[in-house]
Amino acid sequence: MILLDGKKTSADIKQEIAKSVEEIKKQGRRAPHLAAVLVGIDGASMTYVGAKVKACQLVGFESTLIKLPEDTSEKALLQQIEALNNNPDIDGFIVQLPLPKHIDEQKVIMSIDPNKDVDGFHPVNVGRLTLGLPTFISATPFGIMELLERYEIPTSGKHVVVIGRSHIVGRPMSILLSQKRKAGNATVTIAHSRTKDLKSLTQQADIVIAALGIPEFLTADMVKDNAVIIDVGITRVPDDSKKKGYRITGDVDFKAVSNKASHITPVPGGVGPMTIAMLLKNNLLAYNGIG
Amino acid sequence: MILLDGKKTSADIKQEIAKSVEEIKKQGRRAPHLAAVLVGIDGASMTYVGAKVKACQLVGFESTLIKLPEDTSEKALLQQIEALNNNPDIDGFIVQLPLPKHIDEQKVIMSIDPNKDVDGFHPVNVGRLTLGLPTFISATPFGIMELLERYEIPTSGKHVVVIGRSHIVGRPMSILLSQKRKAGNATVTIAHSRTKDLKSLTQQADIVIAALGIPEFLTADMVKDNAVIIDVGITRVPDDSKKKGYRITGDVDFKAVSNKASHITPVPGGVGPMTIAMLLKNNLLAYNGIG
Repeated sequence: MILLDGKKTSADIKQEIAKSVEEIKKQGRRAPHLAAVLVGIDGASMTYVGAKVKACQLVGFESTLIKLPEDTSEKALLQQIEALNNNPDIDGFIVQLPLPKHIDEQKVIMSIDPNKDVDGFHPVNVGRLTLGLPTFISATPFGIMELLERYEIPTSGKHVVVIGRSHIVGRPMSILLSQKRKAGNATVTIAHSRTKDLKSLTQQADIVIAALGIPEFLTADMVKDNAVIIDVGITRVPDDSKKKGYRITGDVDFKAVSNKASHITPVPGGVGPMTIAMLLKNNLLAYNGIG
Repeated sequence: MILLDGKKTSADIKQEIAKSVEEIKKQGRRAPHLAAVLVGIDGASMTYVGAKVKACQLVGFESTLIKLPEDTSEKALLQQIEALNNNPDIDGFIVQLPLPKHIDEQKVIMSIDPNKDVDGFHPVNVGRLTLGLPTFISATPFGIMELLERYEIPTSGKHVVVIGRSHIVGRPMSILLSQKRKAGNATVTIAHSRTKDLKSLTQQADIVIAALGIPEFLTADMVKDNAVIIDVGITRVPDDSKKKGYRITGDVDFKAVSNKASHITPVPGGVGPMTIAMLLKNNLLAYNGIG
């Protein structure tokens, strides 16, 4: 069994990006610049945004963190986005989700210049992904594709079962894996809460992407020998033996499934660490002009 | 076995649209207006566009056909599109594909105002479809969804195998059928030229969508009893017994498969006739302001 090591892979990617930034600076050009907008003081959001800013520093990106109060009006946020859209020194930016309830998230996403939408959430970028056109692939699916590529997992003609149809993971994964592309050309089944007899499907799968958000849902009896298992789940499960009082648990019963799998992502340390690296990669694409 | 009669269903839909147009006119408002741009004199394209204009007349839409010579420059075509985008009397328009080789189709599609893109080809509309937002669903997948709905085919929890991953049929079908929506919530497998052991997949399918463009590809041994079969193929196969020298053949071996199927679309007379009705429906949506 080979562990798909997201921690190591993301470190490799960050190092590659740092090298590119060095090259850019050597040429006397300004460094790529990523901005993040954070509305309110949600704990998890603050942690995520903080990690993104730190990663920018690590690779030599400029970064700007715009903190707005919880009671920021939708109009004020849209004006802030407009300013970022028009600022030629900002290559890409994200608006950390979720937003306070009085703000229409879809409206906010629609207002971001698609050429700076490094989260890949704007419908035009989702459409470009669906059509196989160059675009910003959002961080989690982009990270999974990168793991599959770097570990040279064969996907062409393989049967992939994606569990979960979310806009940010299951849906884009099902599209990407079935396209003509690197780590593509797979036969893909998308399963979800309404799927009947899921087990009979996952038992046929060469690759399973578990992205439903139910801890340890995928058990050993559901997978065939030598399957490749990608675990996208990250749920906090109460655990008194831990200092924090919880442990991070994936959607896969890792202990049992890892005995059957040929390759598997651990949780934590698998898909999770890839996301920030892929956000940086998208911002480098934005700098180099994908749009 | 029940025939999914696209000819009758499309006639029903056109009648419903005609009624809506009557209502609109009774209120003293102008009729919906669809424009079509045709570049060159490709025979099939001329036939299709002609049928679309005729359908407009049938339901009471205004229609405008803009015929441009084969050697129209890309720039001139883009200017024509810009004029249509800016014309408040035109609700929706299509640019008949394929275009002459010296014109970049993707550039043309990108230049159409998404709110008038009744073909649903603009990336922002493809993205909106992928995200489950209101949009113009392109005519063929929209027509299939409509057939499934009107014949009350259960799809929730059913296993659908879509054969073909084209941007205009296979891909959108696989997305639509697996979304939370009417005629949705299915478990969907997308298969294509790289798929191995397709037969073992189609044999499991409650519904098969055949959209690969190979005449009589889907044979009786590939489907299970009481499956629902949607045939999207339309290939001209040489046939001396016909006046025209050919017959229109679908992707399904109709004679044999129809003996096993619970429901099946004939070719011709199945999915094909639905497409123009759905284009009209999209134009009515454009008139009523979907965007």
